[in-house]
Amino acid sequence: MIERLTSLICGTEPMNAVWSPEATLQRMLDVEAALARASAAHGVIPQSAVPAIVATCVAEQLDAPALARDAALGGNLAIPLVKQLTARVKAVDPEAAKYVHWGATSQDIIDTATVLQLRDALAQIETGLDATCAKLAALARAHRATPMVGRTWLQQALPITLGLKFAQWLDALLRHRERLAALRERALVLQFGGAAGTLASLRDAAPQVSAALARELGLAQPALPWHTQRDRIAEAASFFGMLIGTLGKIARDISLQMQTEVGELGEPAAAGKGGSSTMPHKRNPVGCAAVLTAAARAPGLVATVFAGMVQEHERALGGWQAEWDALPDLARLAGGALAQIEQIAGGLEVRPERLAANLDITHGLILGEAVMLALGDKVGRLDAHHLVEHASKAAVQSGRTLYDVLAADTAVTQHLDEARLKALLDPANYVGEAGAFVDAVLAAHDRQAQRQKQH
Amino acid sequence: MIERLTSLICGTEPMNAVWSPEATLQRMLDVEAALARASAAHGVIPQSAVPAIVATCVAEQLDAPALARDAALGGNLAIPLVKQLTARVKAVDPEAAKYVHWGATSQDIIDTATVLQLRDALAQIETGLDATCAKLAALARAHRATPMVGRTWLQQALPITLGLKFAQWLDALLRHRERLAALRERALVLQFGGAAGTLASLRDAAPQVSAALARELGLAQPALPWHTQRDRIAEAASFFGMLIGTLGKIARDISLQMQTEVGELGEPAAAGKGGSSTMPHKRNPVGCAAVLTAAARAPGLVATVFAGMVQEHERALGGWQAEWDALPDLARLAGGALAQIEQIAGGLEVRPERLAANLDITHGLILGEAVMLALGDKVGRLDAHHLVEHASKAAVQSGRTLYDVLAADTAVTQHLDEARLKALLDPANYVGEAGAFVDAVLAAHDRQAQRQKQH
Amino acid sequence: MIERLTSLICGTEPMNAVWSPEATLQRMLDVEAALARASAAHGVIPQSAVPAIVATCVAEQLDAPALARDAALGGNLAIPLVKQLTARVKAVDPEAAKYVHWGATSQDIIDTATVLQLRDALAQIETGLDATCAKLAALARAHRATPMVGRTWLQQALPITLGLKFAQWLDALLRHRERLAALRERALVLQFGGAAGTLASLRDAAPQVSAALARELGLAQPALPWHTQRDRIAEAASFFGMLIGTLGKIARDISLQMQTEVGELGEPAAAGKGGSSTMPHKRNPVGCAAVLTAAARAPGLVATVFAGMVQEHERALGGWQAEWDALPDLARLAGGALAQIEQIAGGLEVRPERLAANLDITHGLILGEAVMLALGDKVGRLDAHHLVEHASKAAVQSGRTLYDVLAADTAVTQHLDEARLKALLDPANYVGEAGAFVDAVLAAHDRQAQRQKQH
Amino acid sequence: MIERLTSLICGTEPMNAVWSPEATLQRMLDVEAALARASAAHGVIPQSAVPAIVATCVAEQLDAPALARDAALGGNLAIPLVKQLTARVKAVDPEAAKYVHWGATSQDIIDTATVLQLRDALAQIETGLDATCAKLAALARAHRATPMVGRTWLQQALPITLGLKFAQWLDALLRHRERLAALRERALVLQFGGAAGTLASLRDAAPQVSAALARELGLAQPALPWHTQRDRIAEAASFFGMLIGTLGKIARDISLQMQTEVGELGEPAAAGKGGSSTMPHKRNPVGCAAVLTAAARAPGLVATVFAGMVQEHERALGGWQAEWDALPDLARLAGGALAQIEQIAGGLEVRPERLAANLDITHGLILGEAVMLALGDKVGRLDAHHLVEHASKAAVQSGRTLYDVLAADTAVTQHLDEARLKALLDPANYVGEAGAFVDAVLAAHDRQAQRQKQH
Repeated sequence: MIERLTSLICGTEPMNAVWSPEATLQRMLDVEAALARASAAHGVIPQSAVPAIVATCVAEQLDAPALARDAALGGNLAIPLVKQLTARVKAVDPEAAKYVHWGATSQDIIDTATVLQLRDALAQIETGLDATCAKLAALARAHRATPMVGRTWLQQALPITLGLKFAQWLDALLRHRERLAALRERALVLQFGGAAGTLASLRDAAPQVSAALARELGLAQPALPWHTQRDRIAEAASFFGMLIGTLGKIARDISLQMQTEVGELGEPAAAGKGGSSTMPHKRNPVGCAAVLTAAARAPGLVATVFAGMVQEHERALGGWQAEWDALPDLARLAGGALAQIEQIAGGLEVRPERLAANLDITHGLILGEAVMLALGDKVGRLDAHHLVEHASKAAVQSGRTLYDVLAADTAVTQHLDEARLKALLDPANYVGEAGAFVDAVLAAHDRQAQRQKQH
Repeated sequence: MIERLTSLICGTEPMNAVWSPEATLQRMLDVEAALARASAAHGVIPQSAVPAIVATCVAEQLDAPALARDAALGGNLAIPLVKQLTARVKAVDPEAAKYVHWGATSQDIIDTATVLQLRDALAQIETGLDATCAKLAALARAHRATPMVGRTWLQQALPITLGLKFAQWLDALLRHRERLAALRERALVLQFGGAAGTLASLRDAAPQVSAALARELGLAQPALPWHTQRDRIAEAASFFGMLIGTLGKIARDISLQMQTEVGELGEPAAAGKGGSSTMPHKRNPVGCAAVLTAAARAPGLVATVFAGMVQEHERALGGWQAEWDALPDLARLAGGALAQIEQIAGGLEVRPERLAANLDITHGLILGEAVMLALGDKVGRLDAHHLVEHASKAAVQSGRTLYDVLAADTAVTQHLDEARLKALLDPANYVGEAGAFVDAVLAAHDRQAQRQKQH
Repeated sequence: MIERLTSLICGTEPMNAVWSPEATLQRMLDVEAALARASAAHGVIPQSAVPAIVATCVAEQLDAPALARDAALGGNLAIPLVKQLTARVKAVDPEAAKYVHWGATSQDIIDTATVLQLRDALAQIETGLDATCAKLAALARAHRATPMVGRTWLQQALPITLGLKFAQWLDALLRHRERLAALRERALVLQFGGAAGTLASLRDAAPQVSAALARELGLAQPALPWHTQRDRIAEAASFFGMLIGTLGKIARDISLQMQTEVGELGEPAAAGKGGSSTMPHKRNPVGCAAVLTAAARAPGLVATVFAGMVQEHERALGGWQAEWDALPDLARLAGGALAQIEQIAGGLEVRPERLAANLDITHGLILGEAVMLALGDKVGRLDAHHLVEHASKAAVQSGRTLYDVLAADTAVTQHLDEARLKALLDPANYVGEAGAFVDAVLAAHDRQAQRQKQH
Repeated sequence: MIERLTSLICGTEPMNAVWSPEATLQRMLDVEAALARASAAHGVIPQSAVPAIVATCVAEQLDAPALARDAALGGNLAIPLVKQLTARVKAVDPEAAKYVHWGATSQDIIDTATVLQLRDALAQIETGLDATCAKLAALARAHRATPMVGRTWLQQALPITLGLKFAQWLDALLRHRERLAALRERALVLQFGGAAGTLASLRDAAPQVSAALARELGLAQPALPWHTQRDRIAEAASFFGMLIGTLGKIARDISLQMQTEVGELGEPAAAGKGGSSTMPHKRNPVGCAAVLTAAARAPGLVATVFAGMVQEHERALGGWQAEWDALPDLARLAGGALAQIEQIAGGLEVRPERLAANLDITHGLILGEAVMLALGDKVGRLDAHHLVEHASKAAVQSGRTLYDVLAADTAVTQHLDEARLKALLDPANYVGEAGAFVDAVLAAHDRQAQRQKQH
């Protein structure tokens, strides 16, 4: 639906589903159900109370508008949820109702539910990252040797290859893949501490219940509760933010290369996407715009989560609550931006004629360095520099190509004949390590894909 | 509903209603309807087309899920909305359907709808500000002379009055009141430029249609369209952010004064709000927490809007779209935070016995300066300083009150008798200009309220 | 010097001078000197103490390294400064030394000094804004009718004029001019409250001393001290941030128009600036890069100041101190970015041949709408739409110009002869209200300049 | 010196030294020297050129003011630095001067120098982290069983132990220790790509020179250059930001516990630090304030670096330059905040009498749950809840202790005798897993310290 306008263009259905109100409520109920099972297993609550509690932990049965209304009174969603859950259990089994939420505090439920959602979100990101990397790897391989102009300061500089550009993007995504693995290790842990983080109300059974609860939910058990130690959440926010940053860089490049005046790349054509019936020349970078929107929003959201880390005592005011929307928004933006780049990478239009034409715009000036180096081998670097500098200026002033100017200069042609000069002024011959760099990244990608397959 | 978790605790129904999906769609349709009327009035489209268009501009009639789906293809919500609107008009009056959205671009519709929503939001803020100011003024008046301890560095420093604290808050809110008026002047303007901001497709009628459209909507007409000049939106974001900052400061103070160990103030008791059945001593500052949550989120959202100002050419990629949720979120947080403070100010519990008791915690040390000044008039400032410094240290070391130490020192009592010493150590006698400051702010508030009434 | 790397490219000498360590110290000393004069004028300290104090308030005399070292102990710069000042006064006039800093608290000195620096900064910004506006006005006037392509989504859309683009920028700067005036009214006020904001230690003389101090410094007197009410500082931060945002937008446009493939504009050539000896085609947008750097930094700095508003009690921990560098950095970035745009606007290279050539890249497709409207007058809008849409697609597919396709279609030529068709396809004839918009902004500028002159 | 006011209170000498202008220049020169050696080793430049170049790479010899002036023209500091360096080499060995900076681009030098500085910064952080962890471990061990009140919502909730609080802080710092190791792996890599990232001008020798350069500098060699892939820098920024967030949380807790009304902890007394001669009761949390200042600044700086990730093409405008001060500032704030917490942890005053007294403020109400659980074993949980709830309310209303109320109620005393009741109301008996949690974190710390020692 359209409750969040940016989600319309930046989100994806699967990621939105992870963080939907229904999913949030269900995840909280999942924790309550698991808590009942874990507590009963260790004698904290009677086994007989479990069935009624577990059977009632179904989000659709809740009165969501009432939850929304009451959340304001208690200050969070868990308080009215527990109240409703207890009332519904009571209607079925009054004895069981006494044992709902036993030993937990609101934040235990909300944080653990968030961790479960984060786990789902990271699984989606992993899938999307792997698919996107595979597509970029294919592009890098296909265009390993396609020359294009490299640009610095938004100015044409020297030739590179299109494959090198793709490999650059891929290289960064492979690092995010590593970060994702490390994040999982640290962040996917249970939150369970009770009112002040001591689990005092569980008395002797606390360690067993805590371990069982973690097992039930498939989460790791931390050394101790972390109600006001939010570095795990901050690391998750940071991961999403960095990933979005890289995706934004990719979208920036593609949208610049899609400019009418550049025209080297095109987002894949989709029915009704980015086109205009009366302006058939126009192909709006709609996918890139969505990614750039995510990139414009992410830094502020990351900053919010980081600022929220300064929390008071055992449970805090404001810093924790500020995470509630900021983290889901970051996950949604990351998921959406990744899906957009995956889709674009999967159908990217590459226009070789424009790549070639743009290499020619400066009439060879971007290859002056290549000639200078070759000439330097003959006449020394300083003289070579003067010859090429002079020729370049002459070419600019006269509107001729650098080749024409150089070919008319016997000081040059006595060392470099026509064929050699042409070869030197061929961009494909002056891309340095581009091919080797592409190969190195592809090899890293293959290793990563291999490891992934073995899991 | 619960789609935004922070809205549960930080939002208000009326402000959420301004920015709901339904309201957003309706505001866009309001612009389309007004455009039809304005265009017909100046012969750009036939008068006969108006009734069908206007009658169809009803949000409930739209297929919202289809809009959500299609927005991703076009890159914004206006494109599918115009498409649906056109199809629905066509079903009624095929001729009229040709004139839907005539001359406008998507951003004209979205921006103007946002401005209309902003107008509604500012009206709510104005009402809330005036009500909150009135309540703070009443509090400042009532506690004009109630002494309390002033705190710097979270340490007790010198006496102030509770009224002074209230007046400080009020003074800042009065400045926000001024800013609101200035913001309205600058920001509540029409956006209407067509595809590239020239209104070219309206030919000669452009000025008249533009003026009529502004009139229809009750907005001012800017000198020219502002598709990629976003300072007006940034100013609105900044206004909300600054207001939230001040409200956050108020909430910080109240929540600190509500600490179990301080206990000077209490949020108004509301059934089920912030209480605990098993811990009756506990009164959670639930309203303050909501405000502090808003304060934790606002800076990142303001930064997002500011960062989005760097937009490309005539219509941009990412910077504009980043505003779509950031501005409404800021308005919602501001509206919610203001409502919380208004409610708190309207029922704030003041606990005079705790205010008095806390003034006594240091056994008079916070009044050493008062004695020192009085003594200085007799023995010179340097000697007075030494006497009081010495007495203060003695009091700390011995656990006696400063009065007891001073009263036992003939070097002091020969100049200041018992009664004088007691008076000097009465906090109420050492609050300086507190009363005058309160009066100055109350006078400013009254002038402001008077002006407001005359409107 | 090079202590701040971004200042190297984003700063200006005059603005850096306002915020230099020396200036900061001197401004603090200016406040101390004025305080001595004001206090003596109202009998709080002896007149005889004034000369020694005032004569000692000279920044060069201070031991800056010692100040730096001791600031960490006290927590701010005013504490060691007062200590040093007192010691130096004592060396000259021991009696006078007793009256240094009388009645003030550290934050009074630091805040008031900051306000004095802000006043200087705003004066510079005003001068720069007026000069930049004048240059943009001249550019808008000169290019009022120069057609160029309007771009949306980084794609060519419809023609505009270069003058319209300049007028857009100017229009935004004129609003910042208004905001500057409002900011001055609210922000250039004295801070003077003493230890807890009550001026208690000045006893009866407090109102007179406060008023005299404000007069001495040429600042307005606020209703009451504002130690932890930071909306004034936030408004200043926001002003700088918004201004930088607009300047960033200008720099984005110019740098995009300077791309090798676009080449419509050029930063003024300066010896050694942005050029390359071996790549004479390259003109790096060095000035724009500096402005974009400022624009990348400003939102985070604004967010810092806004986040700092949530301050505790009468004087705070962290929020206030976070302003110390953030506000000066914003002022420096704003001053530097403004100077860059002023310089660029003063010597902007406009390349008419590239503006014209780029209008021709789509072979007339960007003017399809103009033909469609004219044809619509003859055959109805729907048929006209079909004719032009068909012709546009044919032109794209065949590589012919839109003119050639239309001129070969009798369904078109029976209504629009060759001359009319050529006129319709002339971009200069389809810029709508561009001229009127330019005029409106120039008129607003002239009014503003007139008002300014009358001051 | 005092060029950055926040550095005065937040910085440390060693960390400031890493990022000083002199160090920055020297690190750039180190890269130039290493480049000369690496290039000569592989025949790219003559060996004979190396001595003159290496000998000239000394920061003190440079004309820093000239560098500052010229940086604005070229857009960064490397351009004038290379120019000056070349001129100085030329004065010694004109032939060698031709080979200065061979094959590198400005950003290679600046980025690699930054990585070298980052390495130094991380080494300092590691040392500080280890020392701080050791001190917190000692505190956690010492106060493993010291009861204190746990606080949620700034309200007293249930007992915890002081050791648990220290263990919480320690646990978070141990995770930062892990992140530091991962960051080093990814971030401490060479930047070397030449003008467009292809190393084309080094021709066949490129791989060897690149590898040799990495070896010379002790950095890892990345798969390819990363001029516009800034995730490594973002991860560093994020690391600093997260660390500062945790330190800010610690400072928040300590400063709240240092409040006059709470008084449980004190920063170590240092001569002249945080004290007041006339208010001897006042102990300003000066160290905490510095940490909280760092925490207020970090999120905006992290956001700046993240926002800067969206960079154009092969080398960018603005995003890169925005890192120049943001990253060093983050490192400085992290180093300073860590040093403050290390110092505080090393001399923290713990006031057992206030910890105990504060546990008593609610007259036992915070232990109602303990009684309820014990009573529940006898009379069932529901009845126990009612009994305790009733007693708690009675205690609040009558001002008696919970013990007195319960001891007077035979419904209670028939199950829990006086001794048992007293034991239940002893906070030390209701701290749940606090001890076990402390042990778990101490064990993790010991493992970490052990691993560290083995390195």
